[in-house]
Amino acid sequence: MSRTLNTRLTEKLGIEHPIISAPMAFAAGGALAAAVSDAGGLGLIGGGYGNADWLEGQFAAAGNRPVGCGFITWSLAKQPALLEQALAHAPRALMLSFGDPRPFAGAVHAAGAQLICQCQTLAHVGQAIEAGAAVVVVQGTEAGGHGSRRATFTLVPEAADYLAKHAANTVLVAAGGIADGRGLAAALMLGADGVLVGSRFWASREALVPASFHAAAIAAGGDGTVRQSAADIVRGYAWPPEFDARVLKNAFTERWHGRDEELRATAGKLAGEYTAGVARGDAQNAGVFVGEAAGLIHDVPAAAEIVTRLVTEAVALLERKAPGFVA
Amino acid sequence: MSRTLNTRLTEKLGIEHPIISAPMAFAAGGALAAAVSDAGGLGLIGGGYGNADWLEGQFAAAGNRPVGCGFITWSLAKQPALLEQALAHAPRALMLSFGDPRPFAGAVHAAGAQLICQCQTLAHVGQAIEAGAAVVVVQGTEAGGHGSRRATFTLVPEAADYLAKHAANTVLVAAGGIADGRGLAAALMLGADGVLVGSRFWASREALVPASFHAAAIAAGGDGTVRQSAADIVRGYAWPPEFDARVLKNAFTERWHGRDEELRATAGKLAGEYTAGVARGDAQNAGVFVGEAAGLIHDVPAAAEIVTRLVTEAVALLERKAPGFVA
Repeated sequence: MSRTLNTRLTEKLGIEHPIISAPMAFAAGGALAAAVSDAGGLGLIGGGYGNADWLEGQFAAAGNRPVGCGFITWSLAKQPALLEQALAHAPRALMLSFGDPRPFAGAVHAAGAQLICQCQTLAHVGQAIEAGAAVVVVQGTEAGGHGSRRATFTLVPEAADYLAKHAANTVLVAAGGIADGRGLAAALMLGADGVLVGSRFWASREALVPASFHAAAIAAGGDGTVRQSAADIVRGYAWPPEFDARVLKNAFTERWHGRDEELRATAGKLAGEYTAGVARGDAQNAGVFVGEAAGLIHDVPAAAEIVTRLVTEAVALLERKAPGFVA
Repeated sequence: MSRTLNTRLTEKLGIEHPIISAPMAFAAGGALAAAVSDAGGLGLIGGGYGNADWLEGQFAAAGNRPVGCGFITWSLAKQPALLEQALAHAPRALMLSFGDPRPFAGAVHAAGAQLICQCQTLAHVGQAIEAGAAVVVVQGTEAGGHGSRRATFTLVPEAADYLAKHAANTVLVAAGGIADGRGLAAALMLGADGVLVGSRFWASREALVPASFHAAAIAAGGDGTVRQSAADIVRGYAWPPEFDARVLKNAFTERWHGRDEELRATAGKLAGEYTAGVARGDAQNAGVFVGEAAGLIHDVPAAAEIVTRLVTEAVALLERKAPGFVA
């Protein structure tokens, strides 16, 4: 790679490229995080719903690479010991998403990890600043997995203006819909200092995702996803109502999306069926957590190759060596 | 302005800047369209739900400026004579949104107007190509007014890839969330040849919008809007279910959003109250059709000033004279 892309994010985190891999529950293990950090980004292990043994195994898989870890904040609140467990591994960064980060911020700062707070609304950004976040990630509704309703295209510049006014040293990262160098370049134009990438790394060789799920996402276009809560209800996860999750449209969502109350009443009976669908990699009868970027994903390369593509394509666009417009 | 921004869109339409003003029903009259065309973009009169006298008056207000006109396709299908009426004014372009454009395409082509088709999904893009669209606008869910669920950030690059493969001469325009030069520059990076801007021109001096609505939008942030159907139900507009509309959250949406069936049953009684709210410019008791870009709108300048800002800011970013990143 002939050029690097230096931003306030690369300076703040001491990384080569302004790219963070999302701490996707179940999918983002130590191998993916290590591969992204090895390639010059920052890889995050997905702390998810909290399983101490799994988390320990994933930090071990990452070896001594400078990775970070991300938690689902409302879930972490039920098992706060997991935060100390993660911080004991001296992660480069600790990311908190989906809930008030302020109760956990002190421990993160005391451990010397950079605090990354993911926000779905401008209101969340205010909380992140109060928590002393070094990095604010604003995540648009096009993202795969859990999120909310604001879109990347407006949330990034609005958050950039807000940070410029209220916390000028806080670095801004865009998330939601970024799967290639066009997205990285666009995010920088909107005022972000870097990107957090989920779906594109979900479709990497190192992700803990069945090949059948990858195949289903590649076959789908961006029209083929939907925000829903059915997959949370059937798993018994008590997500706050402001968050739902984008998954591939499939037989499961066709059957259950929009029938939340009915599903709640019968979820106990269906949990086994759903879990079995996940276990056998049945992309029609499980939640396949991928975003609208499915329409931009056509292969399953190594994570390092994804980092290289993102940076190479973005630099070409920023230097206007790529076709498409002339100024 | 020292620089212009030439793209495939400026070449195709013979305009100076790659900026089209959205044909917003009621708000986009001849004065706004003329101002945008005078400033080097392309202004579109909002044909809306179809009122022949109003339309005639707005073409008169635009004088002999090279403006275009946009229709709500499903509504135009009920009053097809309006298309001939508009085409008789020799518009530079004729835009069709929200419905199958193919039945009307022949008349547009025969009249020598450029056909612009607005799409909310990749599936719509296929129809637009079949209609022989010169310009495809892909509109993200962050847009104000009517639209659907796909977001700008992923729909633009996915549509760019699709057009490159299936209709390489068709020009691509991004819509939804674009209110400043950051948005214009980002849209170009994502693969668009230009932008269609609604909310930002809605908040211009030439728009047919009450000052009280402008004040409410300026007071709101991007978190303060919601996609809903209540304002259509109460007005008796039979929008296809795939489309709803983004408006400011206010007393009306607080009361009626999510109660569509109940509202349908009583809409007749409430129509007068709603219409009176619109007539007196009551921003709490009417639909205020503006997008998430409300969070990026802080004033009500002349439309020409908006064009200048968009281009100047975008050129500065594209030439990297603006701060925020270094490559």
